[in-house]
Amino acid sequence: MVGSGLMGTSLGLALTAKGWRVSLADRDPGVALAAERRGAGRALTGDDPDEPADVVVLAVPPREVGSALADAQKRRLGRAYTDVCSVKERPTAEASELGCDMASFVAGHPLAGREKSGPQAARADLFAGLPWVLCPDAETAPEALAAVLALVRASGAEPVRLGRTEHDRATALVSHAPHVVSAAMAAQLRPAEDATLRLAGRGVADVTRKAAAAPGLWTEILVGNALPVAGVLEDVAGDLTRTAAALRASALEGTPDAEREVHELLRHGQEGRARMMAAGALGDLAGEER
Amino acid sequence: MVGSGLMGTSLGLALTAKGWRVSLADRDPGVALAAERRGAGRALTGDDPDEPADVVVLAVPPREVGSALADAQKRRLGRAYTDVCSVKERPTAEASELGCDMASFVAGHPLAGREKSGPQAARADLFAGLPWVLCPDAETAPEALAAVLALVRASGAEPVRLGRTEHDRATALVSHAPHVVSAAMAAQLRPAEDATLRLAGRGVADVTRKAAAAPGLWTEILVGNALPVAGVLEDVAGDLTRTAAALRASALEGTPDAEREVHELLRHGQEGRARMMAAGALGDLAGEER
Repeated sequence: MVGSGLMGTSLGLALTAKGWRVSLADRDPGVALAAERRGAGRALTGDDPDEPADVVVLAVPPREVGSALADAQKRRLGRAYTDVCSVKERPTAEASELGCDMASFVAGHPLAGREKSGPQAARADLFAGLPWVLCPDAETAPEALAAVLALVRASGAEPVRLGRTEHDRATALVSHAPHVVSAAMAAQLRPAEDATLRLAGRGVADVTRKAAAAPGLWTEILVGNALPVAGVLEDVAGDLTRTAAALRASALEGTPDAEREVHELLRHGQEGRARMMAAGALGDLAGEER
Repeated sequence: MVGSGLMGTSLGLALTAKGWRVSLADRDPGVALAAERRGAGRALTGDDPDEPADVVVLAVPPREVGSALADAQKRRLGRAYTDVCSVKERPTAEASELGCDMASFVAGHPLAGREKSGPQAARADLFAGLPWVLCPDAETAPEALAAVLALVRASGAEPVRLGRTEHDRATALVSHAPHVVSAAMAAQLRPAEDATLRLAGRGVADVTRKAAAAPGLWTEILVGNALPVAGVLEDVAGDLTRTAAALRASALEGTPDAEREVHELLRHGQEGRARMMAAGALGDLAGEER
């Protein structure tokens, strides 16, 4: 594991439980040591291991994937490499521009996570039953794909093959844009009076739960997937603007057209929600956050 | 109870458990009978009761409050009257325009609910520990307020006094606008491919959970509180539009200003979320939905 935060430590716990030997590295040696104390593997201190690992997992934020891959390959740390960040186009392009060997790298993204971070928040079952996207392409060596697939299966996740562009459009829709929407609603609560906030219940708590996550990491994710996310946000903003206009019209004139427009958005929302619940592994809502 | 749906039946269950005698009415006699079978009181069939009730609860949608109050007062069903809908200005104004006796009416709103509806979804503890707003004004008779307060306390809720305008602005912010935001995000999922929706996890599931509720009732609520809700939606739409523009700018030019703007919205969201969690009874998230 290059990076022993929530993801690296959770994966270390899952693999160790299956009998894998896991080495833990982190820019901050104290973090790697904390991961070792959780039982996620052995912290690397000092020299690199004598033998390359079967798979090196770059469990670092999107912007560091390219340079972390270049560095790991220069040090010959592994035979195959993968990452776990939620954006795939840009980090892969950056790695390629840095002259990395792209045959041994399989871009990956486990649809798992929590709002909390660091080795203390790690859980061996973080990936259990959840999709783990892999984006091999024509350059990918079959041995590298096989090694990464074995790791994904050992984690308990379900491997899903997807193109990088498809992946980034999908996560923009089901993860990145919902994060901004959640934050934008939560930002409205910032200047509210306590008497108002005391009336908040589970409804608004759920809508704004994603907004609790770290702004720094999420800015990096959003900027890394900027155009697909922007497109979804513009569509949501358009719907909200039209609904607000319809509500104003209904107050001034009581037009049935205006009401019909509000009703239609709510109906489309109900349909979208139902489709999503029917399509995914959401029935049991395994995993605290994806 | 005039209306024996989720709210009327839940309140009937709570009051019956405290030894109150509860009569259940509904436009649909089958619904009142179903509420009786749940143990929420005795279904009224045929003639009105000989004696007026201490409190008549109008557990009907916002648009029916005025006419339900006028009808109940004409039939002298009670000594005091209250309602439970989530909008207060407009239904009260409509009751007044219909010539209702406003001295015996105390507008009320328990901050409780579920996405499911009907007597089968009712729960005796639906109100336990949650705020129940009452909006008495200069016209309100002290006996009416005392009777409604006794009912609220017997339900297990915590009475909160608030002006009608204040109430409607507060619920626009912490309930009605979040509902539209949730629906607008969920509507984006409607045309998505199954392969995309399979990547959805708890994050987007929480953001869109409110969108599962009945569009008809919620259209009525939103139109009933149109102007305060429109104001919040316009602000959210503005933030989303600005964030989308900043993301596009960051993709084209990589300007740090653009990133700073994205980061600032996320930080404001995190702060708003933290303020809300600190202010309310949200620590234990009592109640499935408010």
